[in-house]
Amino acid sequence: MFTDRIYNFSSGPSMLPAQALEQAAAEMLNYRGSGMSVMEMSHRSKAYLSVFDEVKADLKRMLSIPDTHEILFMQGGATLQFSAVPLNLIGRTGKADYAVTGNFSNLAMKEAKKYGAVNIACSSEDRNHTYIPAQADISVSGDASYFYYCSNNTIYGTEWKYVPETGGVPLVCDMSSNIMSVPVDVSKYGIIFAGVQKNMGPAGMAVVIMDKELAGGELPITPKLMGYQLMIESDSMNNTPPCYTIYMLGLVLKWLETQGGVAGMSKIKADKAKLLYDALDDSSFFTGCAEPGARSDMNVTFRAGSEELDEKFAKEAAAAGFENLKGHRNVGGLRASIYNAMPVEGVQKLVLFMRDFEVKNRS
Amino acid sequence: MFTDRIYNFSSGPSMLPAQALEQAAAEMLNYRGSGMSVMEMSHRSKAYLSVFDEVKADLKRMLSIPDTHEILFMQGGATLQFSAVPLNLIGRTGKADYAVTGNFSNLAMKEAKKYGAVNIACSSEDRNHTYIPAQADISVSGDASYFYYCSNNTIYGTEWKYVPETGGVPLVCDMSSNIMSVPVDVSKYGIIFAGVQKNMGPAGMAVVIMDKELAGGELPITPKLMGYQLMIESDSMNNTPPCYTIYMLGLVLKWLETQGGVAGMSKIKADKAKLLYDALDDSSFFTGCAEPGARSDMNVTFRAGSEELDEKFAKEAAAAGFENLKGHRNVGGLRASIYNAMPVEGVQKLVLFMRDFEVKNRS
Repeated sequence: MFTDRIYNFSSGPSMLPAQALEQAAAEMLNYRGSGMSVMEMSHRSKAYLSVFDEVKADLKRMLSIPDTHEILFMQGGATLQFSAVPLNLIGRTGKADYAVTGNFSNLAMKEAKKYGAVNIACSSEDRNHTYIPAQADISVSGDASYFYYCSNNTIYGTEWKYVPETGGVPLVCDMSSNIMSVPVDVSKYGIIFAGVQKNMGPAGMAVVIMDKELAGGELPITPKLMGYQLMIESDSMNNTPPCYTIYMLGLVLKWLETQGGVAGMSKIKADKAKLLYDALDDSSFFTGCAEPGARSDMNVTFRAGSEELDEKFAKEAAAAGFENLKGHRNVGGLRASIYNAMPVEGVQKLVLFMRDFEVKNRS
Repeated sequence: MFTDRIYNFSSGPSMLPAQALEQAAAEMLNYRGSGMSVMEMSHRSKAYLSVFDEVKADLKRMLSIPDTHEILFMQGGATLQFSAVPLNLIGRTGKADYAVTGNFSNLAMKEAKKYGAVNIACSSEDRNHTYIPAQADISVSGDASYFYYCSNNTIYGTEWKYVPETGGVPLVCDMSSNIMSVPVDVSKYGIIFAGVQKNMGPAGMAVVIMDKELAGGELPITPKLMGYQLMIESDSMNNTPPCYTIYMLGLVLKWLETQGGVAGMSKIKADKAKLLYDALDDSSFFTGCAEPGARSDMNVTFRAGSEELDEKFAKEAAAAGFENLKGHRNVGGLRASIYNAMPVEGVQKLVLFMRDFEVKNRS
């Protein structure tokens, strides 16, 4: 860790591995003897295609993506996928099921209503999204075009600990805030998508991993660039892709391999989360927001007892080099986002800082 | 110019100013004492907003954008704007006029047909898009929602030398390949948009400059993130914008100011283009493709007399450090894209190389 770099607990965009940033800086003016920056390369040049193909191959290997599924790089982040998913899939039956467990699944559900009928298969709104509904509480429509959920709720700090059973209805999952932090059986999913700016790279792109059999049924009103079939056929290059963002994703993946890949990271992130949740459970001052069975290993939401203390904590933490600990404006409180690139020592030091703050501020 | 950097004549993504790349490299791990990369900043943080606001202010000043117009940063490049323009505007009357002067205006026209009636106001297809129709040859529909054209045709190497007169119908212009190369009276336009990967920065974004009065009439089927009104209200931050691409755009603008801004660049680019076109006109070996009155100052299309010689020229030029001179796969031949960041000496050296090649290869 560079001594002049701070610990950034932002919910996204968020920390990136120093190793990836260092390499990007070193290669900025001349990528490996090409005489140009990756930013300057034609997306159809051999030099760039070798970058592009390697990123895809690394992602395929590290997430064990089967040959039935294609990897797409699409612009517009997860939010544009909220529209792309129904535009491409809802025409199958005209209906879709949504699990509403937080802000972003709710936004996705509202967007789908523009294009078809929506069934809310389950919702955690009754307890302010502090939990994840059990399988028994999900009502899947047999004739849904797809079943949609968001595997980690960044704002509320909850995470699905199981894969919903849908009886054959294709699963669509927004994994923006926990992708690459835990092994996933991709074959269970029709579509996995993720905005990259949390666990994978800089903002400006979504990775879409989709069963190729689900492509080709888009509504006629679908904007051309949002059609999955065209994106598959053009290998994400119907127009110029966000080339540099893809390159940065590649550098992050190389770093992730040094951490043992997704399996290795899964242990590291569990250790980091345990440090924080143990600190919350051991404290009579701080309290966690999410119900214990649904706690996210990526976004730890908590409170310091009052709005004033939350405010004071976030401010003093920032002064001590722990940035962006304020909770989302929709819910207030505090939140430590501890994505893959947050080093263990960042969490260890935060826990020490919390203990110190507690001693100084408890009444 | 770094001796180890090559002259990249790519049509986009393309050369960026070395000054911008150097600063990006220097600031990669710690942006001005923030302790983090711009890539890692929350888009809602003060540190990032100061970057964002400065880019907008610089763009507004350098393009003399009036207060009636808003600057938006949108993902999906120019291609997603091909859909966004009709989705947002065609509902005004259900009809739109398109000037078809090349590949991209043709694609935009086809996309608009999904959402309303299209009138082809003029076309240069009869002479393979080697010219720009005169004002007298444009038939504007009085009841069109907007009149659409592309100010520079990257593939064919033609450029509009005048602003079409539409009798009050709002003008929409794709300026992807010549924005910031020539002063523009923004007040004449309803919407100007440009993918940034040619004259402004790395791929992955479009800049949209729009008369705010044209926003708010989007069709109900418009994907949320493509609605101009929402983008205006959220200052391009309904979701996470492509933060780093915006920062890079800012660095390119700072460099452009050292070249005298848009007015200064307008002279420089005219000098660069003249060097190449004079070389073509003086040669009995090379011939320009575009008709003289319509020649683009950004993309110079030419031929060496045969497919074999074109191929040989592109190959030998690449070996000599002049990359990406092959014409677009749709038209063949040769093309030198000499966007803002191409230094004058790159063009001078290319002209010398062309003369040398001619001597060695003329029959």
